Order: sequence, then C-alpha cells, then structure tokens
Amino acid sequence: MKIAIYGLGLMGASLALALKKNGVPSEVTGIVRSASSKKEGMSLGIADNILLEEEFLDKDIWNNFELIIFSLPVNLTCDKIRLVPSSYQGFLTDMGSTKMEIIKTVEEKYPSTHHYYSSHPMAGSEHSGLIHAKADLYEKRLCILTPPKFVSDVSTEYITKLWHSINMHTIVIDASSHDNILSYLSHTPHILSSLLVNWAAENSVIQKHTEASSVPLTGGGFRDMSRIAGSNPDMWDAIIQTNKEYILNSLLDYRGKLDQLVTKLQENSDPSFWKDYFIYSKKSRDYILKVDN
Amino acid sequence: MKIAIYGLGLMGASLALALKKNGVPSEVTGIVRSASSKKEGMSLGIADNILLEEEFLDKDIWNNFELIIFSLPVNLTCDKIRLVPSSYQGFLTDMGSTKMEIIKTVEEKYPSTHHYYSSHPMAGSEHSGLIHAKADLYEKRLCILTPPKFVSDVSTEYITKLWHSINMHTIVIDASSHDNILSYLSHTPHILSSLLVNWAAENSVIQKHTEASSVPLTGGGFRDMSRIAGSNPDMWDAIIQTNKEYILNSLLDYRGKLDQLVTKLQENSDPSFWKDYFIYSKKSRDYILKVDN
Repeated sequence: MKIAIYGLGLMGASLALALKKNGVPSEVTGIVRSASSKKEGMSLGIADNILLEEEFLDKDIWNNFELIIFSLPVNLTCDKIRLVPSSYQGFLTDMGSTKMEIIKTVEEKYPSTHHYYSSHPMAGSEHSGLIHAKADLYEKRLCILTPPKFVSDVSTEYITKLWHSINMHTIVIDASSHDNILSYLSHTPHILSSLLVNWAAENSVIQKHTEASSVPLTGGGFRDMSRIAGSNPDMWDAIIQTNKEYILNSLLDYRGKLDQLVTKLQENSDPSFWKDYFIYSKKSRDYILKVDN
Repeated sequence: MKIAIYGLGLMGASLALALKKNGVPSEVTGIVRSASSKKEGMSLGIADNILLEEEFLDKDIWNNFELIIFSLPVNLTCDKIRLVPSSYQGFLTDMGSTKMEIIKTVEEKYPSTHHYYSSHPMAGSEHSGLIHAKADLYEKRLCILTPPKFVSDVSTEYITKLWHSINMHTIVIDASSHDNILSYLSHTPHILSSLLVNWAAENSVIQKHTEASSVPLTGGGFRDMSRIAGSNPDMWDAIIQTNKEYILNSLLDYRGKLDQLVTKLQENSDPSFWKDYFIYSKKSRDYILKVDN
C-alpha cells in the first residue's frame, strides 16, 4: 500500500521506520517542508521517497496514496485537513495530541460519509526531529482512536489495523473525553514540568551552587521530572492553544490540591499525614500505570 | 579498613557493593534491625558481615570500626548520633537527605574537636530495600559534604576520600544552604510528583477510561514525572519532618509561579507566551542539568 506521512518529525519518521521494521508491505512517502529535511531524511533512509510539500501540492498527487497520515502540530494538521481536495478517495488520519479542534475541522469539512479517522499514538520523546526517530517508539504503546461524525466503517477498520500492524494497543475515546484525559495525563504535567525547571533555575541559591559545582546538583528524581520540559516548543504551543479549557480546568484542580498540601505543612498538626500521603501516592501511581503488586 | 554501615536499605547496601566493586580495601559490616534483613543481606552477599542492631549495641563494639556510616532516615540518624559512646575513636558520617537536624545534633553532642563529617550522596531510586541495591548507584554522581563545627581536618579528608574512592564528585555546602537547595531540587519535587499521581487518580474520567483500557493511558512524560511518587514513605516522611520551613517556602514560591501561569491561561492575551515559555524552560533545564548545546 502506498502511504504518505505528511510531516517527518520525530513522530512521523518513527512511524515510517516502524512500518518497515514490522514488515508492513508499504511504500512510504514522506512530505517535508524544507530541502534540508528532505536531504537528511533520504540520507538516513527514513522513507522510500521524500517530497517537498510544494512538490506534493503543486503536482496535486493526493490520489497517488491509499492512506495519508498528518504528523504535524495540531494547528497545522487542521490547516492541511482543509486543503484535502474533495476528489481524494483514500483514507486519512493524523497523530494529533488534542482532538476537539481536529474533529471539529473534519466535521466541518465532511457533512456526509468520509474516510477520516483520527489517531493519537501515545509515545514521544524529549527530543524532536527526524534525526531522533526510533523504529520501536510505538512498540506496545497505546493509540487512542477518535471517530468524527460520518466516518466510514471501512476506514475505522483500516486505521485500527494500521496501528495494530506496528504492535500498538488501541482504544476508542471521544474527542472531549480525550482532551480532558490528556490534560491530566500529558498537557498539564508538561506545564508543571516546565514550571519546575524555571522555578528552580530562578532561585539564587541554586544558581550560586550550580555555578560552583562541576556536576549538576540534581538527583535522578528532578532529572526525570524535568525530562519533558522544553521539548518541541511548536508542538506544545499548539497543544496548549487547542486545549485551553481542559488544561485550565485541570491546572485549577491541581492548584486546589496543592493549596491543601500547603495548609497541611503550615498547620503541622497531623504527625502521620505525610507518611500516609506517600503511601497513598504509591497506590495512585500503581493504579494509573496499571502496576500489579 | 573496617567499616560499619548502620542500616542496609537501598542506600547503605549499594554503598557496600560500591566499595567492593571499586576495589576499596575494606571489611564491611552491615547493621540491620530485623533477622530477615540479616538473612537476605547475607544470602545476597551485600556485606562481609551483618549484625543485628541489638548484637552490635549489646556487645558495645563501636571501636571495632575505623568508620561508621549511618544510612538511615534522618530522624533515626539523629537518634543514633546521640547513642555514639564518648569513647568511640573512629570516623563518623551519614547519608542523610536533610542536614540542619543532623548538624544540630552533632554540634550538641560535640562541643570540641570530633570526627563527624556529614555526607549526602545524591543518588536514589524509586525502589527501596537491600534487594534493589546496585553497585553503580553512586557512580559519577555528586556527594554533598557538610561540616559541623569543630570537625577535624583528618576526618574531612578521610570522608572526602571515601566518596572519591567510589567515583563520586564532592562539593562542600553548609547545612542551611543544603536544605534550601534540596527543597527545590528534591524534596518539593517529590511532593509535587506525589500530588500529580493523586490528582490524576482522583479524576473520574481518568478512572473510567483507565478501567476500560488494557494498558495504561499515560505516555512517557507522566511515567517519568511520577516515578519517584510513593518511594520509601518512611524516608520521605523523615525528610519532610526535618525540612519543613524550606519546603514550605519553596512550595509557596512554586504556587506563586503556578498562579502566574493560571492567569496567563485565563487572560489568553499573549499569543506567543507559551512557545516562549517552553523555549525558556529548555534553557532552564539545560542550566540546572549543566547540559551543553
């Protein structure tokens, strides 16, 4: 099958590598914005062919592909959805991190049966760019699938099989629940991680001793908690812009619970509070991460 | 040299293994509280000898050891410091995560020259217990050294060499600065990580879909940010109890900066704010972690 991956950043390029690695019979064409990405992608053997976006659009060759996958920040994904010609016959999906804007755009475009089934493969890295692509990025991870109105059964089946073919698990979640869940499990944690490094870096005592030390002052906990801070600012900006309400809601919820902890520290009246809180946290983590003990 | 490691949890047991791995000529005795730890430690070959605490104390054999290292939660470390007989001639240190209480206890005990030099090897794990001990836990990490009043030159030199012998970097930081720095780089992040998992696990939409999914709904970012949540509740309880003021101070600072982000989301008036914020976060992380780009 002939597949176009529109955007060859970390996510798109890793998908191209995963299709090959898993022996999925496919001819993959990457579509990129810059000549340097084209050159780099070809020299790394990321895809069978790589086209500049202008080549692809000028030649109007959408129907050369049985499947087109948008692997772009959410705002750009919406722009490309609007560009799809009405004559296009193939399947469409995306890898967007928020869903309400994408589903709204798809539903505005297609008032009757169509072949666009939205996807969110839940994997990533603190690195961005095709140079960091990994064939096993998606291995055994979860792909959330979100149906727009009027999506065809044949496309839901086709796109679901695509993710299974690279060894992903799938689950169907509507756009609003997706964006709500992701605000808790990804988007707001990303903001909190970014805040963490800024808060620490702005402290003058930390600055003084960081500069005096030949190695970082941090242990592994801080390193882990800050790993995602600052990764791909364009992608994350688009995520915030397209999920502001749920992010604000979850951030206010976090702040409310933080205030309760501040009060507990200030009151200092319950000697067993913190030990119990950490025991409870372990249970919460095991629950969320489905760890059996 | 004959060394006693008082407490064979993850930290103490890893130190015992690191001394062997690095060929430091030493005979290491572990001191443990329970018969089951003694049995487990012996069968895993953690130390040359393992004594029950009661055996060690009943026989009053402190002077059998050239060096005694307390590897216990901070509150218990302070208890043991008070127990050291005045006849003990050897060197003393600890591996405590907060310093003001320990230094205060040492300074109350010793009104003149003594051989207690406090240490904080900055390494750890989400696991606890000697079964998770690793010989390379401390490899190339930082050990913060904190001098009490009246500490002898010979002991500062001896203890510093000890950490160098297992390939650690060292830096000297006074107790108050240590506890301030660690509140930012370890203690408060630990609370924030614990809060993160509880906040997510208490959300009913997350609960519904977590229960419906065969695999976790989280990506790698959440997993990393929550890794330390719930690790060793006793150790972390003792850390909070002995560093409440700096932790409260840093938590209030974090909350203040969080409030600014909430306001930015609510106002929604600066379209470039988030992209700039994420770019800034990357710089902050690189600064704290001493990453060259």
